[in-house]
Amino acid sequence: MNKTQYSVILSNVGSCSDRFLTEGYDRPYALSELFERVAQIPQVTGVELVGTWHVTESNVKELKEYLERYGLQLVSIIPDHFGQMKWKYGSFAAKDRAVRQQAVAHAKEMIDAAVELGGDLISLWPGQDGYDYLFQADYIQERDWFAEGVKEVCRYRPDVRVSLEYKPKEPRTHCYLSTAANALLITQEVGTDNVGVTIDFGHALNAYETPAESVALLKKHGNKLFHVHMNDNFRHWDDDMIVGSVHTIESLEFFYWLKRTAYSGWLSIDQYPYREDGLEAVHEGVRAMEAFGHVVDSLPAEKVERLIREGRSPETAAFLRECLLRV
Amino acid sequence: MNKTQYSVILSNVGSCSDRFLTEGYDRPYALSELFERVAQIPQVTGVELVGTWHVTESNVKELKEYLERYGLQLVSIIPDHFGQMKWKYGSFAAKDRAVRQQAVAHAKEMIDAAVELGGDLISLWPGQDGYDYLFQADYIQERDWFAEGVKEVCRYRPDVRVSLEYKPKEPRTHCYLSTAANALLITQEVGTDNVGVTIDFGHALNAYETPAESVALLKKHGNKLFHVHMNDNFRHWDDDMIVGSVHTIESLEFFYWLKRTAYSGWLSIDQYPYREDGLEAVHEGVRAMEAFGHVVDSLPAEKVERLIREGRSPETAAFLRECLLRV
Amino acid sequence: MNKTQYSVILSNVGSCSDRFLTEGYDRPYALSELFERVAQIPQVTGVELVGTWHVTESNVKELKEYLERYGLQLVSIIPDHFGQMKWKYGSFAAKDRAVRQQAVAHAKEMIDAAVELGGDLISLWPGQDGYDYLFQADYIQERDWFAEGVKEVCRYRPDVRVSLEYKPKEPRTHCYLSTAANALLITQEVGTDNVGVTIDFGHALNAYETPAESVALLKKHGNKLFHVHMNDNFRHWDDDMIVGSVHTIESLEFFYWLKRTAYSGWLSIDQYPYREDGLEAVHEGVRAMEAFGHVVDSLPAEKVERLIREGRSPETAAFLRECLLRV
Amino acid sequence: MNKTQYSVILSNVGSCSDRFLTEGYDRPYALSELFERVAQIPQVTGVELVGTWHVTESNVKELKEYLERYGLQLVSIIPDHFGQMKWKYGSFAAKDRAVRQQAVAHAKEMIDAAVELGGDLISLWPGQDGYDYLFQADYIQERDWFAEGVKEVCRYRPDVRVSLEYKPKEPRTHCYLSTAANALLITQEVGTDNVGVTIDFGHALNAYETPAESVALLKKHGNKLFHVHMNDNFRHWDDDMIVGSVHTIESLEFFYWLKRTAYSGWLSIDQYPYREDGLEAVHEGVRAMEAFGHVVDSLPAEKVERLIREGRSPETAAFLRECLLRV
Repeated sequence: MNKTQYSVILSNVGSCSDRFLTEGYDRPYALSELFERVAQIPQVTGVELVGTWHVTESNVKELKEYLERYGLQLVSIIPDHFGQMKWKYGSFAAKDRAVRQQAVAHAKEMIDAAVELGGDLISLWPGQDGYDYLFQADYIQERDWFAEGVKEVCRYRPDVRVSLEYKPKEPRTHCYLSTAANALLITQEVGTDNVGVTIDFGHALNAYETPAESVALLKKHGNKLFHVHMNDNFRHWDDDMIVGSVHTIESLEFFYWLKRTAYSGWLSIDQYPYREDGLEAVHEGVRAMEAFGHVVDSLPAEKVERLIREGRSPETAAFLRECLLRV
Repeated sequence: MNKTQYSVILSNVGSCSDRFLTEGYDRPYALSELFERVAQIPQVTGVELVGTWHVTESNVKELKEYLERYGLQLVSIIPDHFGQMKWKYGSFAAKDRAVRQQAVAHAKEMIDAAVELGGDLISLWPGQDGYDYLFQADYIQERDWFAEGVKEVCRYRPDVRVSLEYKPKEPRTHCYLSTAANALLITQEVGTDNVGVTIDFGHALNAYETPAESVALLKKHGNKLFHVHMNDNFRHWDDDMIVGSVHTIESLEFFYWLKRTAYSGWLSIDQYPYREDGLEAVHEGVRAMEAFGHVVDSLPAEKVERLIREGRSPETAAFLRECLLRV
Repeated sequence: MNKTQYSVILSNVGSCSDRFLTEGYDRPYALSELFERVAQIPQVTGVELVGTWHVTESNVKELKEYLERYGLQLVSIIPDHFGQMKWKYGSFAAKDRAVRQQAVAHAKEMIDAAVELGGDLISLWPGQDGYDYLFQADYIQERDWFAEGVKEVCRYRPDVRVSLEYKPKEPRTHCYLSTAANALLITQEVGTDNVGVTIDFGHALNAYETPAESVALLKKHGNKLFHVHMNDNFRHWDDDMIVGSVHTIESLEFFYWLKRTAYSGWLSIDQYPYREDGLEAVHEGVRAMEAFGHVVDSLPAEKVERLIREGRSPETAAFLRECLLRV
Repeated sequence: MNKTQYSVILSNVGSCSDRFLTEGYDRPYALSELFERVAQIPQVTGVELVGTWHVTESNVKELKEYLERYGLQLVSIIPDHFGQMKWKYGSFAAKDRAVRQQAVAHAKEMIDAAVELGGDLISLWPGQDGYDYLFQADYIQERDWFAEGVKEVCRYRPDVRVSLEYKPKEPRTHCYLSTAANALLITQEVGTDNVGVTIDFGHALNAYETPAESVALLKKHGNKLFHVHMNDNFRHWDDDMIVGSVHTIESLEFFYWLKRTAYSGWLSIDQYPYREDGLEAVHEGVRAMEAFGHVVDSLPAEKVERLIREGRSPETAAFLRECLLRV
């Protein structure tokens, strides 16, 4: 993985909040400052921007200047389908038709903005689409709306790829775009070439997926892995921790399968540095991605392939032990 | 749901084991005794049989006699792809080609047996197909084998339906046929009309699915709900408890959506009565299914539909409270 | 449970945020408005106030007026050990000695405020005490600090009870005050009569506790159940949903054990109405608590005691089915 | 950790079953064979035996011969409180008084056997003590019985240590001896010097404990860590996998804290090699324990202590990355 390109979601180098400390664990950072901080990480050559948080109707020109000034590429825009009061009952699958239309319209605007900023990818994370309570949703109708909205977005510009980021829960107790397999079902309903899937490593763990298997599943069903968000967690919740800080072997296997399936997209940090300095945490996250890439490149490919083919776990465990613990 | 047909997996009225008490929590029951016990539950008019455990090459005639004697219908056969040493590394997705062939061959035999016994459904639960360890499996290759094997089974007799029962884990730490969405992806690969999906209520909970939503998902994607296994658990594991003993509202919503989507198949008990008398536990499980059906039938349909359409959770919670607690 | 007293955490009738929608799912509510809204729920006769959010150094007189105007009793103050940047590395167990001292000082101030407002209970929820990462904490030292700080708070005024609210995770990935048993260990270290434990129904579910068993555990070990927070969730996370909206039988059993152990404290709503009107959601939550109380009172006590004594699950399941589904 | 002593539960080198393949994933192994296999692992100098499975009233002499022949030390006996039909409703906490007495009597017999075989430790795992269903248990009464029974066992021979192995679930859906903190509460009720706690690494993960923190908790509350069982899993269930095969950093931190708290007991393998050769799997598990011990010994202690003291996660993550990935 020599030509790996690393990026970061811009807000990751700033401050973040939770429901108890709504004003943030750190002081607010201005947009310019966030760019300036990203630019301090030499390995990072691209950024992802979030609708509303970073991209507004009026600041595209300003963003362009930042990208140029710091030599950063626009990797994707994540339209805001989660961060405003109007999405509280959903976006593409909202019960209110007007909201569903706004969801599509906003995504199109963000596509336009992405193109203007030199990008060719948007990453949809419609986290408010789903439900909290039992007997609260018409699962068929709302899933239909969801697919229709995404389809309209995908048809808007065939030259821009639309990548669907799945996550089983949060902010809803149950999200429609919940797992890799669910995301694939939706790409099939959409049916266009420019629709694909974003794996967020932590979301895959939350869904009890083995992240490497999720890579394989998306490869198998139409080569649909379009984008990757990296972080880590303790499996039960999207803790958005520093890459590799919990799951050493899962991370290694994930990078192995990215290489094995010839993934050629970006590797993008998606961490929430509640109590860390965001810049330090992202920098370490990127170093961890580099390290996993290096280790994967240094593995004896033939032997690993044989281990996978034979599946004898004591031998595999011994191999990984020697690799990681050197004894 | 007036014409609901209730059935039971034959072994459920007998004894069961776990890894600590391998000889069973109760004395063994002879085949004839199991039938005789099922016949004591008036609501039950069908049985599911398990390959090896109940159906062998030589006892089909004997089984036919039992079915006739007790006036029971054969609902399905669950081929044995999990209960013999030869499946320990998998069945349809086993690394050993000979084992994969045996998996297909056994399924065909069970199809023949089912037809001979008057049935038209087999329920595949290839629980050994998956992996335990990281770096242990070629996820693409093995999933390909899995779909190929199932396809061959489905093509064997187009007049017999083949229903795939998904479950995220156990006996493997990760099973390939893991979720409703994953099962749908496989039915698409198979591509025949006679392939569908079995929802086991408890397996859906294990996958953090809302069981009613799983019903909807299968309806939406090709009307693929072929069969239902009922039980309950504490979400984290397939505890196989008595129907309705933990999840009152999820069960109610599940039965509501079975009716709403016009499910017309069997409702089959799949409990593991470790410390209960199996007959008593199944009888209570069936009564619980009847009760949920009755409550669903007594609900004011227009109001429930409005609640679902509007999704206002305090009102919905109030409705359910009055329904269940009568105050 | 005839004399049950219902209360609510004041912010529950207002708006709330999450990390994606930091400005809130609803408009902000003024303090006066929150009181005015609580007063609209006739069953509620008490409120819990949160430090910083509701109680400041300068507004105790104002709060007193509100309490009097609306005829509400102060049930407890929850000191703010979670909602300001200074607690981001912990409060009682913070690595910084000055912060630990501030945690104690703030708790004492809140005790004084509580007394001034006619209260005799504070409910500590030191949610920031714990750790996120592995190798990040000296578990012994920090637990020692934690117990020392709480002890100093408890000794400040023996006539004010100090109740410890446990929760396994959030906002830290791992909190020190994690389970009922852990809380009991800390009450033992503190060793005063005025220290006890708050059960938050949802936190108990998060810890894979059976809430009724947690009531029993605290009864058994020194009659230490001092306070109750009610809500519901889907087990894996503190979703803070409307009481009874998910777990019907667990809630019923919880209320049964509250009565069985002669719990005489308040039953307080602790919900997060992200997408609901807070007032409606709390009102329904209180109605649900009343309903569970009524059902418990109407249960045939002798029969329930016999069921518990004998533990025959099919019979118990049948009893609960008839109770809830009436068939 | 130079003088670490490694042991294994004897059955681990043989075959094991689950509820689907009750006759075992491998052929049965005779007692003599199991000893002979353990003896092939040079690092292993001790064995744990299980009541009924390995130790009967009549074979103590035979066992003594095996121990001598193979130069193995008896590390502990795990009395059988889980593997016979008579324990199906519990052992120390069973509702039937006669069963409770048998539980105590069996433990005493196993103490006698242990002493005769040169041991001074029994490890109690009363996995059947708990409940499956809601409203099924008198949590106070049964916990009282549990503590009384254990106390009687502990008083039998003060020179033999009695170590309590906790586990949140399986075989019951809820076990009384569920967590480290719960185990400590019971040791306090027992009140003797010879009662302590066994940490099973995987059980701690199941309880959402950080295993290193569990070591610390037991150190802090009376130096009560008496014994260690090692394995690994995917957090949600007791998968009993090869040591270190999933959780690299948790395992490393666990060994670090064993050293830091001067744990001087045995490190004993407790794996279930469903599809592996038991001997190979145990051998690899032991090598992994050695490797973690070596890495811990090679860590710069001052730096690690500073990292723990300061808790700055990006720096800690960088340190662990360099340690494990060498880049």
